[in-house]
Amino acid sequence: MRERILNAARRKPVDTTPIWIMRQAGRYLPEYRQLRERHSMEEICRAPELTVEATLQPLRRFDLDAAILFSDLLVPLWGMGVSFDLVEGRGPVLQKALTPAELAVLPPLDLGGVEFTFHAIRLLRRELDRPLIGFTGGPFTFASYLIEGKPSRDYPRTRAFLHTYPREWEGLMKRLADNLALYLKGQIEAGVQMVQIFDSWVGVLSPQDFRERVKPYLNAQLEQVGNGVPRIYFSTASAHLFPEFVTLPVEVMGVDWRVSLTQAKGIFDNTYALQGNLDPTLLLGHEEDLLAKASTIVGEGRMLVGHIFNLGHGILPATPPERVARLVDWVHAQGARG
Amino acid sequence: MRERILNAARRKPVDTTPIWIMRQAGRYLPEYRQLRERHSMEEICRAPELTVEATLQPLRRFDLDAAILFSDLLVPLWGMGVSFDLVEGRGPVLQKALTPAELAVLPPLDLGGVEFTFHAIRLLRRELDRPLIGFTGGPFTFASYLIEGKPSRDYPRTRAFLHTYPREWEGLMKRLADNLALYLKGQIEAGVQMVQIFDSWVGVLSPQDFRERVKPYLNAQLEQVGNGVPRIYFSTASAHLFPEFVTLPVEVMGVDWRVSLTQAKGIFDNTYALQGNLDPTLLLGHEEDLLAKASTIVGEGRMLVGHIFNLGHGILPATPPERVARLVDWVHAQGARG
Repeated sequence: MRERILNAARRKPVDTTPIWIMRQAGRYLPEYRQLRERHSMEEICRAPELTVEATLQPLRRFDLDAAILFSDLLVPLWGMGVSFDLVEGRGPVLQKALTPAELAVLPPLDLGGVEFTFHAIRLLRRELDRPLIGFTGGPFTFASYLIEGKPSRDYPRTRAFLHTYPREWEGLMKRLADNLALYLKGQIEAGVQMVQIFDSWVGVLSPQDFRERVKPYLNAQLEQVGNGVPRIYFSTASAHLFPEFVTLPVEVMGVDWRVSLTQAKGIFDNTYALQGNLDPTLLLGHEEDLLAKASTIVGEGRMLVGHIFNLGHGILPATPPERVARLVDWVHAQGARG
Repeated sequence: MRERILNAARRKPVDTTPIWIMRQAGRYLPEYRQLRERHSMEEICRAPELTVEATLQPLRRFDLDAAILFSDLLVPLWGMGVSFDLVEGRGPVLQKALTPAELAVLPPLDLGGVEFTFHAIRLLRRELDRPLIGFTGGPFTFASYLIEGKPSRDYPRTRAFLHTYPREWEGLMKRLADNLALYLKGQIEAGVQMVQIFDSWVGVLSPQDFRERVKPYLNAQLEQVGNGVPRIYFSTASAHLFPEFVTLPVEVMGVDWRVSLTQAKGIFDNTYALQGNLDPTLLLGHEEDLLAKASTIVGEGRMLVGHIFNLGHGILPATPPERVARLVDWVHAQGARG
């Protein structure tokens, strides 16, 4: 198995910069759009053979250093008795908003309710000659979906909830931390070699709210998962929280395009390998602009003890697949640090 | 006229911390909702007597240190031949997306097309015994509305545009800077005593993109406006850009709730008076939590050479008006720095 990405995550030497791409299995691929003509998102998530197909599609085209399990972030809610619809182009929408009292007593995760995910991972392990990344969200991200009930720009209901219902918030976050750790441990047991914890919008919080109302539960989740496989923590628009992130028990810290890897290194020093951080919109423009920026990022990455090349956020549906192929090959052609 | 807020903006001594509230004229007020039952947003913006009524409503209830002109951010587009609809609960939506070529040659602002705004300001000046704040957006904010055509979370089309069409971007930003400066100068001439430049979502950019693709045009706008009245620059989720903001020609820097005033002072030192930065969701919760946080903010503000109390972003429609009254009176009761 190609171990380049695992070595970078463990801050060991690599022959060249490893690369994978957030949402690499997705709507920018014609073969994925064909799959979606015949099956809903929910069907693809629930049927292991369809999950395998969607996961493998980008690996057939691009020399990526890892596959990432195809799934929806909120899938584990199906194992917690919460119903939601995956609305195309809009994201998940809860069928019924939960009250603060209901949120405080969310049931434990029923692993049987998400067995299809573990089944797909076992199938994928047989097919793949490179690492498979598993994933879930952090407790804040799940709490915010449950409280808002629909996609939001800066999560005012969630911020109001954590200020107004501190006890219910604590109950919710504790349960989510346990459930999401259990879900990730199930993925690791089934065979993933790395995990990413998505907390994309945690940057809406102040450092104080993050420290007091989120970090204890995120820590609990990460500690329960353990360091058997490398853990990546991902968020966006969160540079003001980096000083709080310094002590998180993970191996890799995701960085979005809003700050440079060098700026991030200024705060994280060599505590973590860093992952990132190309602005996904550069894949829509001119190739020379794309490669100029990629060159800057690879150069900055060589000053780190570990760097995994990725976008700063998910790939956009309008991206031409041939641009992705060019980027992946170009990054690999740069070789090891000079 | 009560000059407290102007003195704070000019970093002169004040008897107590001045306060105003972003979106203080708006949907949380029953009398505003009544007005909106009879008139559309567009009607209120276009009819000077209705603008005056909406602007004055919060001042009849609360002892605010300034009024802010009631208007929509995009009103000056009507003076640039661009049509859009104000869609309730969703924001402005363009009637037709403009091509890059059309954007590059946006027409100069026709001041006659926004004369109703200046008329409303002249009427308000006769009624008010305290400063009136005028406002508009920065060129990035206007460019992003024109390019996206509808509200967006992280403005991928705008980021793609500025990377892909640098020449068209430059043409658009130059014209917007000139037009928006002209619009603000018209407001100042008509009688506003202070202006706020809203660049709420500029934080989606990297420091490099901000420095190279936004700052020159923002500077041009601000310099054309001049320092005859204090200028406030407002953005959110932009702490990673603060080092770039240090040299902007403004008197007051807005700070959202994501960073503390003390953290902001660490970067801005005493270059600017600071405005902010209560999380608006605290107005929805318990009064003791609200006042505890307000106390922290007033205390931090006393360590600055100039502080204007405000929320970190607009007031939420669900806010109880009596909570606002309590906050305003409580802030004033704290007196001058000890």
